[in-house]
Amino acid sequence: MSSTAGQVIRCKAAVAWEAGKPLVMEEVEVAPPQKMEVRLKILFTSLCHTDVYFWEAKGQTPLFPRIFGHEAGGIVESIGEGVTDLQPGDHVLPVFTGECKECRHCKSTESNMCDLLRINTDRGDAPLEKVCVLSCGISTGLGATLNVARPTKGSTVAIFGLGAVGLAAAEGARISGASRIIGVDLNPNRFKDAKKFGVTEFVNPKDHDKPIQEVLAEMTDGGVDRSVECTGNVNAMISAFECVHDGWGVAVLVGVPNKDDVFKTHPVNLLNERTLKGTFFGNYKPRSDIPSVVEKYMNKELELELDKFITHQIGFSEINKAFELMLRGEGLRCIINMET
Amino acid sequence: MSSTAGQVIRCKAAVAWEAGKPLVMEEVEVAPPQKMEVRLKILFTSLCHTDVYFWEAKGQTPLFPRIFGHEAGGIVESIGEGVTDLQPGDHVLPVFTGECKECRHCKSTESNMCDLLRINTDRGDAPLEKVCVLSCGISTGLGATLNVARPTKGSTVAIFGLGAVGLAAAEGARISGASRIIGVDLNPNRFKDAKKFGVTEFVNPKDHDKPIQEVLAEMTDGGVDRSVECTGNVNAMISAFECVHDGWGVAVLVGVPNKDDVFKTHPVNLLNERTLKGTFFGNYKPRSDIPSVVEKYMNKELELELDKFITHQIGFSEINKAFELMLRGEGLRCIINMET
Ligand SMILES: NC(=O)c1ccc[n+]([C@@H]2O[C@H](COP(=O)([O-])OP(=O)(O)OC[C@H]3O[C@@H](n4cnc5c(N)ncnc54)[C@H](O)[C@@H]3O)[C@@H](O)[C@H]2O)c1
Ligand SMILES: NC(=O)c1ccc[n+]([C@@H]2O[C@H](COP(=O)([O-])OP(=O)(O)OC[C@H]3O[C@@H](n4cnc5c(N)ncnc54)[C@H](O)[C@@H]3O)[C@@H](O)[C@H]2O)c1
Ligand SMILES: [Zn+2]
Ligand SMILES: [Zn+2]
Ligand SMILES: [Zn+2]
Ligand SMILES: [Zn+2]
Repeated sequence: MSSTAGQVIRCKAAVAWEAGKPLVMEEVEVAPPQKMEVRLKILFTSLCHTDVYFWEAKGQTPLFPRIFGHEAGGIVESIGEGVTDLQPGDHVLPVFTGECKECRHCKSTESNMCDLLRINTDRGDAPLEKVCVLSCGISTGLGATLNVARPTKGSTVAIFGLGAVGLAAAEGARISGASRIIGVDLNPNRFKDAKKFGVTEFVNPKDHDKPIQEVLAEMTDGGVDRSVECTGNVNAMISAFECVHDGWGVAVLVGVPNKDDVFKTHPVNLLNERTLKGTFFGNYKPRSDIPSVVEKYMNKELELELDKFITHQIGFSEINKAFELMLRGEGLRCIINMET
Repeated sequence: MSSTAGQVIRCKAAVAWEAGKPLVMEEVEVAPPQKMEVRLKILFTSLCHTDVYFWEAKGQTPLFPRIFGHEAGGIVESIGEGVTDLQPGDHVLPVFTGECKECRHCKSTESNMCDLLRINTDRGDAPLEKVCVLSCGISTGLGATLNVARPTKGSTVAIFGLGAVGLAAAEGARISGASRIIGVDLNPNRFKDAKKFGVTEFVNPKDHDKPIQEVLAEMTDGGVDRSVECTGNVNAMISAFECVHDGWGVAVLVGVPNKDDVFKTHPVNLLNERTLKGTFFGNYKPRSDIPSVVEKYMNKELELELDKFITHQIGFSEINKAFELMLRGEGLRCIINMET
């Protein structure tokens, strides 16, 4: 039992008070965990673009003050009434979605959209300063390819957006044995990083006058077999759909859209036997699937190379730097050490 | 060898000279079959809504003069050079798409969109005056459910549009063991026919103030498991997509849209793990699959009841009646006997 169990504690937090303004370091009070809740001590966080969207609040509903950080790793500090599958000291990856194992989503083999929001547990000794990136972005991208797009060996896959999520999707394509992995990004700096992730060709929509879906169709004799969109830009979503081959092509949307965005296409693009899907956390069920992803990563059964995603490491006091890096499109994941 | 083989022959045809104007009976010349072609004597045709769209030419590119009729049954009259798998006298269902068995579509297990347009053969003695409806509409609807939507036993399926294609889709849902089949149509007369096809509930969008996808979500605790759109109306396509349950719902579009239609939805509807697909001829490969559908129907292995679809029978000289019936939304399929 930790000495703070059952008590209100005071913690350091980086608080966002206004859209787009630097976070302010403050002390906040955290209540003891209620029934079926646990209180975590977060050790490492990495910044995901979803945090930046809600902080910028340009295309999303503004909600302030607010404390960000959903891609994290930590230790259970204390547990509330009724919690039986976690105990103080457990190492955990909190995940932004849950798995109650009882609702219709949890019972469905196709969905991971649990009706209740719970957290995920991992009893291994995996290095939290690395695997924290699995709690959102990397699992999302990897799962978007492995669980949803499911390219077959030898196929051609287009990845829109070469941030951490897109490169994890590319990693999924490489693991699946795709023979061509075409990366699409507006930022040419991304192409250098992307080479390390098995991306074989690069296309920058800015280098072409015609719609990028036409460029891709020409490069691939009619269209790619699979595409995974990881940009959050609605035009990229439309291109990612329209660039897949008729007959068998599957497009998977991952990016978080603005609240007023509209996806538009001619229905004939669907009638011609294209499939359009979206995914939330790469269709992984957090409690059932993520511990095994971590385990496979640790045992090197999964050819996933997490180190490649971690391009920056900073202390908590420098958190605003992580936002700046993401806005400038520099690096992939910046790990924030909460203890320094 | 028929006595007309190798010669130009004169045939009766119902020619459309102008959009929406009655067809005119004329004599036309038909050249002998070229290399890899066959010439057919059509015995029975049924009218499909796709014929009516291109005749009305409201939302489609006008192309006149024109001879309609793609849902048909007939006999091979003569064959061109190089044809080895058909001979004069064979009973055939000509299909609007082909299967060369060599292009990438034919080799794919997912696509039926052959790069070449060939015809389909059926050596059985199946009654052409019935099975001609399998050459387009009924196979399309049946396949949309059995091959593409694939509802599991006990699931809830919504069918938009209760013409012959939609009711064949409902028949597919019944055969799959769906426990609720919800029919959606603007024409309440359709509900009487639909009862015979296992449709368990009816919804008319005209009876509701709110969008029909919301009505369906309320009826089904969040959405249907599968939906199949068989109307050709783009708003019905959007509703059919948005009425499926998040997490696992699959919507299949079958209707032929107008050329300027735009399918619009908020990308979050996709991100919430809905799947959107379209199909062409129910994803059946005409040469590989249709003979076995006909055979299963003849052996009563498939619980398909074709008679229920045939609500009218007329002679060729009365062909304009078939167009009137379709425009008024009366009956399902009208079989045209080409010999009378
Ligand atoms: N569905 C989910 O569960 C889930 C989970 C995590 C992240 N996300 C979303 O995934 C997306 C990617 O996240 P990230 O952390 O990798 O972001 P990131 O900013 O690191 O990467 C996005 C990349 O997309 C590129 N891009 C932007 N617009 C483009 C366009 N029109 N065409 C081509 N490239 C374009 C940018 O240059 C950038 O390199 C975000 O929208 C994020 O919110 C979704
Ligand atoms: N994809 C393919 O391969 C393929 C093949 C054959 C037919 N089709 C198409 O399938 C569609 C159906 O063909 P059919 O022969 O059964 O036509 P039909 O006219 O007999 O039936 C269509 C039904 O849809 C209903 N409807 C129209 N708008 C609606 C709306 N907004 N909401 C609800 N119901 C609505 C009509 O009242 C009618 O009952 C047509 O668009 C046809 O072109 C596609
Ligand atoms: Zn659940
Ligand atoms: Zn995230
Ligand atoms: Zn082919
Ligand atoms: Zn047709």
